This record gives sequence, C-alpha cells and structure tokens, in this order.
Amino acid sequence: MALLLVLFLANILTTSKGSISQPDHVHHQIHLLRPQSGAGGNLVPGLSCLSWRLGVETNNIIGWKTVPQVCEGYVGHYMLGHQYLKDSRAVVNEALLYAQSLELDRDGIDVWIFDIDETTLSNLPYYAKHGFGVEPFNATLFNKWVMEGAAPALPESLRLYRKLLSLGIKAVFITGRSEDQRSVTAANLKKVGYHTWEKLVLKEPSYSGKPSVIYKSNERKKVEKNGYRIVGNIGDQWSDLLGTNTGNRTFKLPDPMYYIS
Amino acid sequence: MALLLVLFLANILTTSKGSISQPDHVHHQIHLLRPQSGAGGNLVPGLSCLSWRLGVETNNIIGWKTVPQVCEGYVGHYMLGHQYLKDSRAVVNEALLYAQSLELDRDGIDVWIFDIDETTLSNLPYYAKHGFGVEPFNATLFNKWVMEGAAPALPESLRLYRKLLSLGIKAVFITGRSEDQRSVTAANLKKVGYHTWEKLVLKEPSYSGKPSVIYKSNERKKVEKNGYRIVGNIGDQWSDLLGTNTGNRTFKLPDPMYYIS
Repeated sequence: MALLLVLFLANILTTSKGSISQPDHVHHQIHLLRPQSGAGGNLVPGLSCLSWRLGVETNNIIGWKTVPQVCEGYVGHYMLGHQYLKDSRAVVNEALLYAQSLELDRDGIDVWIFDIDETTLSNLPYYAKHGFGVEPFNATLFNKWVMEGAAPALPESLRLYRKLLSLGIKAVFITGRSEDQRSVTAANLKKVGYHTWEKLVLKEPSYSGKPSVIYKSNERKKVEKNGYRIVGNIGDQWSDLLGTNTGNRTFKLPDPMYYIS
Repeated sequence: MALLLVLFLANILTTSKGSISQPDHVHHQIHLLRPQSGAGGNLVPGLSCLSWRLGVETNNIIGWKTVPQVCEGYVGHYMLGHQYLKDSRAVVNEALLYAQSLELDRDGIDVWIFDIDETTLSNLPYYAKHGFGVEPFNATLFNKWVMEGAAPALPESLRLYRKLLSLGIKAVFITGRSEDQRSVTAANLKKVGYHTWEKLVLKEPSYSGKPSVIYKSNERKKVEKNGYRIVGNIGDQWSDLLGTNTGNRTFKLPDPMYYIS
C-alpha cells in the first residue's frame, strides 16, 4: 500500500511538473500525462497497462487496432521516458553479443535484416502528437509525416548497425513503406546515419492487402536465393520475425504503439 | 527526476515495511527485498532488471543459466507481488478470447497442450527459498521438492483449464519432468484441481540431453499423428511454443526465474 500511495504521488508530481525527460525531437508538453496511469504504476482499475504491454511484446495479445484508451498516459510515459530506450538497449546488447560470437567468413554474403519504422527510424514525433497509438491509424497523415523525411534514428539500432558493418555484416532493409516512398526513405536513412546498405526493399503494389509476415518472408527468401546468408533479423513487430527464412536469430524491439500482422 | 526520487523513496518504504502481498503457500518474509531494486524501479546501475525481464520474456535474452544477482530482489518482488498474477491473467484472458472464438466441432479431437512447471503447477514455494533463480539449478533439491507433490496450481492456468474443458477441448500435458515422476505428478495435478486429461506425457530417458524444444515438438507431432487437433498451446518457456507442430496458437506465460532451451 505504501508503494501504491507513493507511486500515485509520483504520478501527480510528474504530471504537474511535466518533469519526464523527452528527446530533443519531441516538443515539450505535447501530451499531458494523466494522473491515473504512468510509467511506474498499474493504477487503472480492471486493466493493468503493464500486463497489456507485456502481452503485446510477447505476442500473446495480437490483432489489436489501437492502444487501450486508459493506457495512453502509460504508453506515452514509457515511450518518452527512459524505459523504452533502456529496453531497446538490452535488445541491442544481446544482438551484439550474438553477432560478436559468430565466426564470420567475411566472404561478403553475411547480411542482417532491419525493419525500418520503429526499428531503424523512429516515428515517435508523429505518434506523440497522435495519442501514442490510441487514435486509429490515419494513413494520410502518417504518409505526410513519412514524406517529410524527418524521422530520427533509434539510437540503439544505429549503434547495432554501425557495429555490424564493422564486423563485415551488410544491412538489408525490408520495410512496409511503399515503393513510391523510396527516395524520401533513402534520404531519411542517410541523413540520420545509415549511410550504406546492400538492399532497400520497399513494398510493391502486388503485396497490397497481404499480411506483412507474408511479404517479409517472401522478400527474405529472395535475399537467400540471391546467395546471402541471413545471420540476424531485427524488428519491432513479430511479423518481422516470424514466417519463413527468418534468419539465424531474431531480435524483437519494443513497440507498444501499434500492431502489424 | 521527481519520479525517480519518489520511486526510490517507494522502494525504501516497501523494503522497510515488507509490505508486499504474498500467496498463502509462501512463508512470510522468507526473503528480504533489497533496497536497490524492487518491483517499482530500475535503480540498479548498469542493468535495468525491467529490461532484463522484458528481454527474457520476448526471447531476446536466451541461454542464461541464472538470474543476474542484482535482480534477485526485483524478481522476488515481481513473483510474490501482484504483477506476476496480473501478467498471467492477461495471457489467460487472451487465450480464452481465442478459445471462445473457435467454431468447435465438439468431435472430441480438439486438444490444448499444457506445460506443467510454472504453467499448470507453480514451484514458487521452492524458488522463493532458492533465490528466485539466482542460485544455480540443483537437480537433487528440485527433484526432492517435486517428489513432495506439494506444488500449488497457478490460479489463472487452472481457470483456463476449466473453461477449456467446458468448451469440449481436452487437456494434454507435456512436461520436462521424467517418467519416474509420473505418479507424484498425476497426484499433484489432481490434488490442486486438474482432475482429468487426455494424455500426460513425461520425458523418457531416450530424450536425455536433448533440448526440450526437440522433445516437445516430437511429442506434439505424435499427438497430431494420433488424430488430435492442437488448437492451443501454453507454456512459460519459448521452448514449449517454438519448433514444429506448435498448434494453432501459442501463449507465453511469464517466467523470469529460469530458462530451458
């Protein structure tokens, strides 16, 4: 009870002072955190936002369209606070331990598959203005944001990318972004530090309406058919990591804001 | 900063008062929670126990032998407090939503695969006395505990089991426990409410030294060859849920105490 009481106090304090840390690219106080929820607690009656997030991250909770309304403050707090970065760091640490343990031939055919949105590039500036996933997805507005080419890098993923390149592992990006977003996506990647890649695969119209897991499996199969060895694969969605030709080992980055099947 | 400060205060208060709730079957104050960690916080320098646990639950952190020493208090707090139960409840809620959405033929061949340890039966009374996974696994002591047949049910898994039976889905238990533990395991299951099952599969000596994922895949394949339809599969280890013949949908229960490949 002492813990709950003090957490409640913490939420009030945090909300009134707006004292959570925010990345430079996110405007201050864009979103008021609500007192009944927050990064520390599960004070929402009937729904534990912590349990919801764990359920999402473990692929138990699937096929959801929007973040539960009561978890808006919790997810916002998580994404803008320290924990999202820390959770991403723990994933990248494991990925690097794994990559460094490989006995690589340096024959030029080792590749690592990277997803783009919420994996290499962050759309947090967009989602912070749109309820952190509580608002239904608006393709028009989201594509407008994409076309600005202003998405920052996820710092931990950029660290992974750089170290993999230094180990002689090449990057292959496979994204759900559409082919007509190629030039802005390439420019955005380069601007934030992803300067080179073996392949940048965008979704062709023929995949329209098909699940991402089918599209991505198919494109990974093509990569392997072209003679590459997929040593690793990282994404924020389970549909990046399941299916076929998944690679030798997969890594799931956190993303409590949206679900793609 | 206000949040961190107050969380720190919360940990101190909680530790000094020992005010976490504990299940009846676990002795009170068996394990002093340490002030530098706790369910609320990630105050351990260099390692976020929250990130470690998320990494474990998402199968990013694999092949580990023991819980990191600094996370003993955190894991103990998690397991004995409310969050473990809440996280399990969120998983079972999804499993039931799924099961109730199935159009079942009630032809008697629908089965659900249940793991046993940390899925249907809880070894928390044992682990609470052995550092919540910080101590290296001791087969002699653990088997002595198993032979007592005193493991309680995981309440949420028992709820799932009962509802599945009422839907006409039969239970198949596949466990890493060995064949010579059959009678005590069956008696333990019945004592805590799992009264009936289609099959109880224990590990035969021929699987000795082989990964659990091979053993369990192989046994699920036999279940399917015998004409059953695996509509669902639940376990606390990813090795319960990966491999082949995994069933139509899988559910991952939390377990930050040990890893089985």
